[in-house]
Amino acid sequence: MTIPRIDADRLAARLHALAAFSTSQAPAVTRVVFTDEDRQARAWFRACCEEDGLTVRVDAVGNTFARWDGTDPSLPAVATGSHIDAIPNAGMYDGTVGVLGALEAVSALRATGVVPRRSLEVVLFTSEEPTRFGIGCLGSRLLAGRLEADSGTRLRDRDGVTLDEARQAAGFTGDLASVALGPTHYAAFVELHIEQGPLLEQRHIPLGVVTAIAAPASLRVTVDGEGGHAGAVLMPDRRDAFLAAAEVALAVEAAAVATGAIDTVGTTGVCHVFPGAVNSVPSRCDVEIDVRDIDQARRDAVLARIAAACAEIAARRRVTIETAVVNADPPAACDPAVVDALTASCEALGLAHDRMISRAYHDALFMSRVAPTAMLFIPCRGGVSHRPDEYASPEDIARGAQVLALTLARLAG
Amino acid sequence: MTIPRIDADRLAARLHALAAFSTSQAPAVTRVVFTDEDRQARAWFRACCEEDGLTVRVDAVGNTFARWDGTDPSLPAVATGSHIDAIPNAGMYDGTVGVLGALEAVSALRATGVVPRRSLEVVLFTSEEPTRFGIGCLGSRLLAGRLEADSGTRLRDRDGVTLDEARQAAGFTGDLASVALGPTHYAAFVELHIEQGPLLEQRHIPLGVVTAIAAPASLRVTVDGEGGHAGAVLMPDRRDAFLAAAEVALAVEAAAVATGAIDTVGTTGVCHVFPGAVNSVPSRCDVEIDVRDIDQARRDAVLARIAAACAEIAARRRVTIETAVVNADPPAACDPAVVDALTASCEALGLAHDRMISRAYHDALFMSRVAPTAMLFIPCRGGVSHRPDEYASPEDIARGAQVLALTLARLAG
Repeated sequence: MTIPRIDADRLAARLHALAAFSTSQAPAVTRVVFTDEDRQARAWFRACCEEDGLTVRVDAVGNTFARWDGTDPSLPAVATGSHIDAIPNAGMYDGTVGVLGALEAVSALRATGVVPRRSLEVVLFTSEEPTRFGIGCLGSRLLAGRLEADSGTRLRDRDGVTLDEARQAAGFTGDLASVALGPTHYAAFVELHIEQGPLLEQRHIPLGVVTAIAAPASLRVTVDGEGGHAGAVLMPDRRDAFLAAAEVALAVEAAAVATGAIDTVGTTGVCHVFPGAVNSVPSRCDVEIDVRDIDQARRDAVLARIAAACAEIAARRRVTIETAVVNADPPAACDPAVVDALTASCEALGLAHDRMISRAYHDALFMSRVAPTAMLFIPCRGGVSHRPDEYASPEDIARGAQVLALTLARLAG
Repeated sequence: MTIPRIDADRLAARLHALAAFSTSQAPAVTRVVFTDEDRQARAWFRACCEEDGLTVRVDAVGNTFARWDGTDPSLPAVATGSHIDAIPNAGMYDGTVGVLGALEAVSALRATGVVPRRSLEVVLFTSEEPTRFGIGCLGSRLLAGRLEADSGTRLRDRDGVTLDEARQAAGFTGDLASVALGPTHYAAFVELHIEQGPLLEQRHIPLGVVTAIAAPASLRVTVDGEGGHAGAVLMPDRRDAFLAAAEVALAVEAAAVATGAIDTVGTTGVCHVFPGAVNSVPSRCDVEIDVRDIDQARRDAVLARIAAACAEIAARRRVTIETAVVNADPPAACDPAVVDALTASCEALGLAHDRMISRAYHDALFMSRVAPTAMLFIPCRGGVSHRPDEYASPEDIARGAQVLALTLARLAG
């Protein structure tokens, strides 16, 4: 097999160009789904795909598929891709490496002059991040048919805008039900991603072949107490919503630590305090919680422990605590054949690699429901992600894209 | 003495008209200093004063003085007033009753046909609420000469706008140092206000004569931890800024309760979590704390206890906690002669009254530094304040304005 050559410079330049579509000051990147910046970034990506000779299709939620036809276009295609949305004050590599790296991999394959049997598709998934609608992997969840039919009108952002309103304003119309793929639509799916953890860097290994993805869950918690004047309401009379929320956050930490398992994590990343004045007793708090574990039963036991803590705190502090499970997804096991294809490609290129689990979730978590799926990790500095100082070297990125290209060639035949 | 007659209907109508200058939906009132709504409300108030025949002066920070000349305008005047700014999602009576009630009281005195010896001034104080610049009683603090000379450039709102920039954009120019009043500028100052506590209502007493004002303090606390991906950063590696802030808030509560004194209150009313994404470990929290007590030494002991807790939490959680004291003011004792004038007026009208302390602070806290000062409280429903359902009856308001009118007449001779 001809070794496909990755243009590392072009790939790095494209990553930087994409990072400029952001509502925060560089190096921080903020790109929330269906904002102007997201729309501009999508238009730019589409132009890149067309420049590279691919045919672009977009579905009703904005998932974007850039296709290179194989010699037998009637066969299920092999897909690869990731997301380009970024949480507030994030970095420039999470997701984007898996989208632009995939495009570079396919272009490198085209440049070899050999057309594979199966078609190849580069996929940009809509809203892997839960920032706007509270639920992660929105696009891939819909592709896997794992979102309720009423989600378009039920899911709302903090301003009350529904998913349907937001996607239609961004130009993505049609029925959300049309997004779901059949179980034979793709022959395989591979996602290239930065590790978002420190292991590869610590072990000086350039590539990680992912065998399983941890089970994520998220909760939205609303605490209702009683507001009042911070000078006039005496301490025994208080029903302070923020103090209850503070105890909830500490209970999330305690529940995660209590499993004794290193793979359990629990985070309270959002807490909005109302009315939010220094001289006012907080009347309400909106809290968002994230819990993950590679072991689903253990993850669910943490959720139960948090619910029990909320009930105890509510009773003791005379506040109301409402807990809604936004999502509680099972873990994903990667497909052995796709894992083997990735491993064989690493070996063909003489590159060291490790098998590992993904603690973060990815669109691969849902693509695994409709296609044989695996993931390829590259190192990122200090294991840091979801921060402006997130960094992966151009060499590591190009290496990942090259292994991806070889793997796609193997899978596409 | 002729009994001045309060036009309760006109006063109630003016209170409702003023409530309409708000950035939040009625019945909630939000009117932050130097916003468009604040400027429009000020213009409307000025028109009311001029309609009532008063002469208006405005100082460099926007404090507004509406004057009715006495028979001897060279004598120090008697002043009365309060504020019209409102914290986010507040009610329509806090402060406004003391401004529009004062205007009504002076108009009622004019209508008797008797001109007092001393001039009377109705004062609208700028930014009694600390919402925008973090420090309460901005206008009265400057009148009392109790704000550092560099405050115009040093004090900033959350968007980084300085006090000087904000006041100048609102049309209030000139040197801030020119705001300070001499110690003989006013012969007396009286502030009418809703109680913001439940005592008058519980005791069925229509009037409270305030003998002292509790000592307020506020802190701005910044917690810096380390952000990261909520799935990938393991629990033992975390330096979560929000969990530290949660413990700080609980420590504030514990420190206030620990004094064992009913007069000690401690509140964490503001907590902004960054970056504020459900799947991101909080890297920073901006926290605002309010502590008050009628006993200054006890209040300062609570501040010391909070500082010690912050140091302990910072060390244990490996985060940085910076604590800045925004203000730590002494309590105020009211002037016996002004207290007696208020008491005599209640008695002249045959109205029951109680002596009480003010747990909330008011512009009177600072006016007491430059003039013999006292306050008059009227009941508010349920003791509720700083909330949209804050309520005082038109009858109670009119009764307060009538006692105020009689007291002003006594003090002005």
